Amino acid sequence: MYQINDNYQKLPGSYLFSTIGKKVNAYSAAHPEKRIIRLGIGDVTLPLAPAIIEALHGAVDEMGKAETFRGYAPDLGYDFLREAIAENDYRARGCDIGADEIFVSDGAKCDSGNIQEIFSLDNRIAVCDPVYPVYVDSNVMAGRTGDYDSAREVWSNVIYMPCTADNDFVPELPKETPDLIYLCFPNNPTGAAVNRSQLQEWVDYALKVGAVILYDAAYEAYITEPDVPHSIYECQGAKSCAIELHSFSKNAGFTGLRLGFTVIPKELKCGDVSLHSMWARRHGTKYNGAPYIVQRAGEAVYSEAGKAQLEEQIAYYQKNADYILNGLKKAGYRVSGGVNSPYVWMKVPEGMTSWEFFDCLLEKVNVVGTPGSGFGPSGEGYFRLTAFGSYENTVEAVDRIKTL
Amino acid sequence: MYQINDNYQKLPGSYLFSTIGKKVNAYSAAHPEKRIIRLGIGDVTLPLAPAIIEALHGAVDEMGKAETFRGYAPDLGYDFLREAIAENDYRARGCDIGADEIFVSDGAKCDSGNIQEIFSLDNRIAVCDPVYPVYVDSNVMAGRTGDYDSAREVWSNVIYMPCTADNDFVPELPKETPDLIYLCFPNNPTGAAVNRSQLQEWVDYALKVGAVILYDAAYEAYITEPDVPHSIYECQGAKSCAIELHSFSKNAGFTGLRLGFTVIPKELKCGDVSLHSMWARRHGTKYNGAPYIVQRAGEAVYSEAGKAQLEEQIAYYQKNADYILNGLKKAGYRVSGGVNSPYVWMKVPEGMTSWEFFDCLLEKVNVVGTPGSGFGPSGEGYFRLTAFGSYENTVEAVDRIKTL
Repeated sequence: MYQINDNYQKLPGSYLFSTIGKKVNAYSAAHPEKRIIRLGIGDVTLPLAPAIIEALHGAVDEMGKAETFRGYAPDLGYDFLREAIAENDYRARGCDIGADEIFVSDGAKCDSGNIQEIFSLDNRIAVCDPVYPVYVDSNVMAGRTGDYDSAREVWSNVIYMPCTADNDFVPELPKETPDLIYLCFPNNPTGAAVNRSQLQEWVDYALKVGAVILYDAAYEAYITEPDVPHSIYECQGAKSCAIELHSFSKNAGFTGLRLGFTVIPKELKCGDVSLHSMWARRHGTKYNGAPYIVQRAGEAVYSEAGKAQLEEQIAYYQKNADYILNGLKKAGYRVSGGVNSPYVWMKVPEGMTSWEFFDCLLEKVNVVGTPGSGFGPSGEGYFRLTAFGSYENTVEAVDRIKTL
Repeated sequence: MYQINDNYQKLPGSYLFSTIGKKVNAYSAAHPEKRIIRLGIGDVTLPLAPAIIEALHGAVDEMGKAETFRGYAPDLGYDFLREAIAENDYRARGCDIGADEIFVSDGAKCDSGNIQEIFSLDNRIAVCDPVYPVYVDSNVMAGRTGDYDSAREVWSNVIYMPCTADNDFVPELPKETPDLIYLCFPNNPTGAAVNRSQLQEWVDYALKVGAVILYDAAYEAYITEPDVPHSIYECQGAKSCAIELHSFSKNAGFTGLRLGFTVIPKELKCGDVSLHSMWARRHGTKYNGAPYIVQRAGEAVYSEAGKAQLEEQIAYYQKNADYILNGLKKAGYRVSGGVNSPYVWMKVPEGMTSWEFFDCLLEKVNVVGTPGSGFGPSGEGYFRLTAFGSYENTVEAVDRIKTL
C-alpha cells in the first residue's frame, strides 16, 4: 500500500496568500457594494511595457511560421537571454558572472522552492523572521525542518533570525551554525535593505562556517541608495558561497508572464561537486525551459526602449511606496521599508494582532494588506503594504487607513 | 558545513537527450557540410496553428492594457482553461472529471518529475522497461531507487516491467508489489498502445494492491483505433487509484510554449488524506501558475477552429509515422508502434548495440534517432524514430536508412 509524504501533514493551514484570497473573496461576496483596495499580495498592476508587448507579438509571429518556429528551448535558457542578463545585471555592475552561470526559469518562486532539492536533507536552514513563506514551506515538504510548535509557531530544526525594530530589521549572525542561509534584500516582507559592508559580513560568515547563502534579489530594481548592493556578487568571495535568485516579476511586471533566473557560479563547490552541474541536472530532468516568447520578452527588458519604459514603471511604484511610507508616518504610525523596496512594513496599533488588524482594515476601510504574523512569529504586530497598486488607489487606501 | 543531496551522485551520465544533443553538435561541428535529419527527440516541427497564434496575439494585447492586464494566475489554472479541458478531454468521452480536479502546469515533463514529491520516500516504484527517463531519474534524485547496478543498468529498488517483442511491448503485472506504477500509453518510447480491457486490468490490480497509477497520456491525440482508451478514467475505479498527466506538446505543438495538466480526482485518497489537496499545496508553494497568454493559447486548442487545424497537424505527423513504419518494414526491419503513436520502435541490426546503431546512422546517413538502451535495459537492441519531422525529411530519412 502506497504512503504519502507525511511532511505535508505537518504544514499548518494553507499558503498565506491563499488564506488572504479566501478571506477577501468571502468579504466581497457578502458586501458586493464595497470597493476593496488590494495592497496585500505583491502583484503588479501596470500593464506590460510597450517594448515587451512588441517583443511578445514578434515572437508569437515567429511561432506561427515554419521557418522561425521554435520547439523545446535549451534546458537552461536561450543564449540571447542569458547573455543579456550577464551583461546588464552583472558585468555592467562589475560582477564577473558568465552567461553560462545563469539558469533561466519560470520564476523566482519556483526556483526558491526548488533550490533546496540539491542539498542534503540533513542540512539545517536559517531564515529571517519574518520571512517569505516559500523558503520554509518548501523545506517542510522536503522534511528538513523538524516538528512544528504551534504555540510558538516555529519549527524545531529551523534557525530563526529575528528582524525587528531593535535591529532595524537586519538579522544578526545566528548563534547556531546553519548549512543553508536564506537571505532576501531588499527584504520581503519588511522592505529593509542592507548595505555592501553588511552583506559582506554575511558572505564572510558563510565562507567561515561552510554555509551556502540562497540570496533572493527579486526586489533589487527598487534600490535607490548607492551603498545598497544589487547583487550578492558585489561582495568578495560570494561566488564560492552564494546562489542568487532573480525575478522579472517586480522589475518588469512579469507576474502573469512568468520568468526568472538563478545564478550558480561554477566555483561554488561542495568538495569536488559543482552545484552548477547539480542544478543543471535538475533543470534537465524536472524542468523543460521557459517559453520562447517569454524569453524574448525577457530580452526586451534589457533593450534601450525596455529599460527606459521600466524605469518609469518602477518610479511609479516608488512614488506609491513613498506616499504610503510618509502618509502613514504623518498619521502617527511606525513604518519602515519603502525606500529601497516596494514594501512598507507598519506596526499595528497597540493591543491588536496582525490578523485582527487585517480584519479591521478589510471590514472598516476595505483595504487589504498582509498580516505580518503570516511571515513568521517576529512578524506578529506588523503589517505589510505594497506599492504595486495604482497611484489613485494607493492614495485612497492610505487616506482610508488614516480615518481609523 | 553544508552537504549536497547525494542521490544526484548516483545518476549515471547525463540526461539522455542532452547526451544526444552533444553528440549531434559535435558531429555537426566536424562536418558542417552534412545535412542532418533529426528524428530523435520528440520535438514537433509544424508551426503553431493559426487559431493558437490568434489567441496568443489577443492575450498579448490584453497584457498591454491596464484594464485587461493579468498578474499572478490562479495557482491551479484559469477556470476558462480548466473548464475547456474537463469538457473536451473528459466529459465528452464520458469521464466524470470536474474542472476543479484539473491542475494546469507548464508541461507534462515537469509534472511527471514533480508528482513523486507528494509520496513517501519509502514507496517503491514500478516502471516499464524501456521507459521515459524522467520517471526514474526524478525518483533517483529523491532517493527512492536504491543503488545503481552499472553492469545491468538497473536500480536495486525499482521494479522493472519488461516490454519486449514477446509481450507486444505491453508489460505484465509485476511479481513484486509496487506502490507507485508509472504507465504511459500510447507508449513512449515503444509506440505501443493498450486497449480498454488491458488498461482495466491495471486499474483493478492497483486497487487490489493499494498502488497509485501515474498515467502519462501525453500521446493520446495519436490514437486511431477505437478500443484504445484516451484516458485512464475510461476504466472503472480509476478515479480511486490513478493520476493522469497530459501535455499540450504533442497534440498542439506546444513544446516551445509549455503547457500541460494533471488530473487528480478528489476521491483519490490515502486514508483520510486527499492527494488532490496535497498537489494543490505543492502547486501553491513551489509553483506560480502557467502564463496567462499560454493558458489562452491552450483554450484555443479546444475552439472549433483550433480542433480542425490540430486534426490536420496530427494527420500530418501520422502520415509520417505510417511512412516510417511501412517504409522500414518493407526494407526488412522489425518495427512496431506508429499506429496509435508518433513513435516507431525498430529492432537494430543483429550484432549492434543501440548506441552503435545511433553512431552508424548519424555518421553514415546523417539521421538522428534515439538509442533504445537510453530508455532502459530492455531497450537495448532497439531504436526510436519520431514522426515529428517534416514529411520531406521523414521520407528522405527512411530512404537513407534503407541504403544501409
